[in-house]
Amino acid sequence: MDRILEQNLLYDFYGELLTEHQQRVYEDAVYNDMSLSEIAGEQGISRQGVHDLIKRCDKILQDYESKLHLVERFMAAKEKIGEIEQLTAEDTTDPEERMRRIRELSRSLLKEW
Amino acid sequence: MDRILEQNLLYDFYGELLTEHQQRVYEDAVYNDMSLSEIAGEQGISRQGVHDLIKRCDKILQDYESKLHLVERFMAAKEKIGEIEQLTAEDTTDPEERMRRIRELSRSLLKEW
Repeated sequence: MDRILEQNLLYDFYGELLTEHQQRVYEDAVYNDMSLSEIAGEQGISRQGVHDLIKRCDKILQDYESKLHLVERFMAAKEKIGEIEQLTAEDTTDPEERMRRIRELSRSLLKEW
Repeated sequence: MDRILEQNLLYDFYGELLTEHQQRVYEDAVYNDMSLSEIAGEQGISRQGVHDLIKRCDKILQDYESKLHLVERFMAAKEKIGEIEQLTAEDTTDPEERMRRIRELSRSLLKEW
């Protein structure tokens, strides 16, 4: 997965577990695409300090994911929901067959949770 | 929501963030339906100690949920997937209409994530 996308996802799930200061810096770097120097100037810390803080946040967020696997669970579910959505739009397959496939996918989603 | 069901769900999502000792005691109480005295005997701690530990775990798990709302997000998604599953089984409504409704539900799920 693309690094920025991965950081976005992890932050979306676990970002609230970071401190407010960490959140501010991490959001500036990952969401607002600011440079280390810009963030350093804004936060009144060194460029190296910003760099270390971001690395530390990456590690914290990855540790939560390696314990909880919730991003992974969500992504797997999202893929199946994407398949369902595609099946509703497809018009080359028999509707009965599409409905049967949608039922299978939705049941497997319900079972996993 | 039923308390045991809520404890189960919260533990299913965030249980890995408890210590191993907390996990053992909490599982005995919530999953294995053991009494406080039974757990106390097994773990070599007082009945009151078990009681306090379970309350503390409840609080930790609820705090994670109040920050992350992931159980809430999952449950809301699950409800929509349940609707999709029901629509595939229903045979009183026009199939085109059911397909349209399934498309709406799956798209709204994809958009929320």
